[in-house]
Amino acid sequence: MLVVQKYGGTSVGSTERIRAVADRVARTRGEGHDVVVVVSAMGHTTDELVDLAGAIVDRPDAREMDQLLATGEQVSAALLAMRLISLGVPAKSLTGWQAGIATEPVHGNARVARIDTSALKALLAQGVVPVVTGFQGIADGEVTTLGRGGSDTSAVAIAAALGADLCEIYTDVEGVYTTDPRVVKTAQKLAAISYDEMLELANLGAQVLHPRAVENAKHFGVKLVVRSSFTERNGTEVVAENQMEGRRVVTGIAFERQVARVAVVGVPVEEHALASIFSALADRGVNVDVIVQSVVDEQAVDVSFTVHESDLDKAEQIVAELQSKIGFKRIEKESPLAKVSIVGAGMISNPGVAAQMFVALRDAKVPIHMVTTSEIKVSCVIPADLVEEAVQALHRAFIEAEAVTPLTHAR
Amino acid sequence: MLVVQKYGGTSVGSTERIRAVADRVARTRGEGHDVVVVVSAMGHTTDELVDLAGAIVDRPDAREMDQLLATGEQVSAALLAMRLISLGVPAKSLTGWQAGIATEPVHGNARVARIDTSALKALLAQGVVPVVTGFQGIADGEVTTLGRGGSDTSAVAIAAALGADLCEIYTDVEGVYTTDPRVVKTAQKLAAISYDEMLELANLGAQVLHPRAVENAKHFGVKLVVRSSFTERNGTEVVAENQMEGRRVVTGIAFERQVARVAVVGVPVEEHALASIFSALADRGVNVDVIVQSVVDEQAVDVSFTVHESDLDKAEQIVAELQSKIGFKRIEKESPLAKVSIVGAGMISNPGVAAQMFVALRDAKVPIHMVTTSEIKVSCVIPADLVEEAVQALHRAFIEAEAVTPLTHAR
Repeated sequence: MLVVQKYGGTSVGSTERIRAVADRVARTRGEGHDVVVVVSAMGHTTDELVDLAGAIVDRPDAREMDQLLATGEQVSAALLAMRLISLGVPAKSLTGWQAGIATEPVHGNARVARIDTSALKALLAQGVVPVVTGFQGIADGEVTTLGRGGSDTSAVAIAAALGADLCEIYTDVEGVYTTDPRVVKTAQKLAAISYDEMLELANLGAQVLHPRAVENAKHFGVKLVVRSSFTERNGTEVVAENQMEGRRVVTGIAFERQVARVAVVGVPVEEHALASIFSALADRGVNVDVIVQSVVDEQAVDVSFTVHESDLDKAEQIVAELQSKIGFKRIEKESPLAKVSIVGAGMISNPGVAAQMFVALRDAKVPIHMVTTSEIKVSCVIPADLVEEAVQALHRAFIEAEAVTPLTHAR
Repeated sequence: MLVVQKYGGTSVGSTERIRAVADRVARTRGEGHDVVVVVSAMGHTTDELVDLAGAIVDRPDAREMDQLLATGEQVSAALLAMRLISLGVPAKSLTGWQAGIATEPVHGNARVARIDTSALKALLAQGVVPVVTGFQGIADGEVTTLGRGGSDTSAVAIAAALGADLCEIYTDVEGVYTTDPRVVKTAQKLAAISYDEMLELANLGAQVLHPRAVENAKHFGVKLVVRSSFTERNGTEVVAENQMEGRRVVTGIAFERQVARVAVVGVPVEEHALASIFSALADRGVNVDVIVQSVVDEQAVDVSFTVHESDLDKAEQIVAELQSKIGFKRIEKESPLAKVSIVGAGMISNPGVAAQMFVALRDAKVPIHMVTTSEIKVSCVIPADLVEEAVQALHRAFIEAEAVTPLTHAR
């Protein structure tokens, strides 16, 4: 079996951790598998490099930032390779350009364009473990980086290019949980989750896997496993929906704090208010999440949307600047709020899941300020101080109340 | 004019220092010169990376060590380039492979084989300042390093390949002095020194310039200037002997502490004792400096040599193991000793300089244990506790007593 193992920053956060990772790689190889390792920078290295640049200039040049940040993974890869060699496991660290990872010619947030696998295949054929720097590639002779969380993307891209049997993402949590175990003590580790569910959860703030990596894994059919480098326990498989063998209607409960709502009240219907408002916000770099438009009467609509709390004042100001153009009545703002979401591919074939959610929240005395839905997700915006009650109520209603056929868990 | 400026570890030792270096590069460019910058790693970065590897394995793999160490210069080069850009000076950092620095396929101590100057020339033609990582190159797609002090070698090699008008080596001292100013308060900064003299001084422990860089500068006729990045003062020019306009007989007084002497007494003449002894020492990694063989009688010779104090016991043991083979009488060892040397190309045409040295040392009551000479150098091994008196006496005799025609100092 060919396994790609990706180790995140915490997993290689110290020289001791790197030795532990080397032991795990050696063991996997001892079991007869071929291994390609992808590593992140050690612990907070990337943040430290960003701080260093910040001490030199206010707005670092993007190309030079990539040259700078790429060193982080080069250090951890070299250290891991030398440890493997000392354990008698032939290994070679490869930077992005050495590993043939070609990206778009963009700095700071490039996408992988293609992988020239000749170097990797040659090493594997010689029985050498390639230790590849995650997060980086090359475009026209220039070092590029893939953005935060980019090592997940590197690992998935390499697994896809090599046709690997498995891509293991090692992190500091044991897998994907039905919800945050710090909020719900009875949260359960999922044996499996579908790509689409994982995408909804990744975007909802369950920061286990980078969304782009999940997208690519789905696209190329790469079998992912999220697991901890600190234990030997099984993790969570991320697989195609049709490979899920038994399931609940709802797979997980996600939530986000520091949500704020802006309401633009009394917008004349003849104005293209949505286009004006959200173009202005995007141009000024404000990320908008939930958008709701409600009809007030024949002449006017109310538009409300959520932003991160730290963007609230900026968003309000941007909208206020549009008043003369749009002619709305007034702006209201509301904060602190939170968003709770239920995610599950099973709800496509189960009507009434949204209603069940509203009932559960009503019974928990949690008022709902906004609602938004997708095929496999329902989100409610609620008061911030009720987020824990809401998550616990939803976990009881959708997870604990429902049994699930256990999934067999491969390797 | 095309100027190569090399900045050492202290010169780029902090973000403040990097900003100061950027100002200097910008100023040089403002004067109408083209500039190529070569940088070392920040401060003690290289030592820290070596320590990191030491915490992972006892004997790091040489290839992986190079992958690891090369990151140090990549960080300083990227930071300097981003600072230059923020000052409005177009700049690009280049790693060894990006700059086209091809070396022998050796790890840890490679020599520069050739430089593909196309990338550097293209940037210069566009008015961009290339900021090149010193100390590293590439061989067959592998990252190589040039050994400690290798950034000097990088700078000289780039200056030679580009036909630069000047190669400035910026460091934390103002230039090359007649002797160590900490020992002799009246030590003078030299306006100029010849390549050969600099080589003798570099090898004698005046750690301003790496000997290999001086050799290459001599070979390719690269005009070097050693100067401080902390002041605006003129430094020391390193030029060909025939470009020295006025000179003293002796240019500088060098010294080395922690010298130890091993004497092998009563070696039968018929044995090839020198070959046996020094092959055995070399095989076991003991560096030998001064070697003296004296005839005792027709049957026997005495062989004595100096090593670094820390190698004394090892050297003694290695020689002792040869006793049955060579059949010498006994081994004597002596420590702590020191070595003082006078260096000057002028002594080629001035017989009697060695005699003057012996007189000066006798008058200062410094006994001489060993003597060794080259065309432009005389070295004496003396008791360690008299090294300061000896250096001061020699400085008075050869430097302070003799006037010199001042040399004009270009740029």
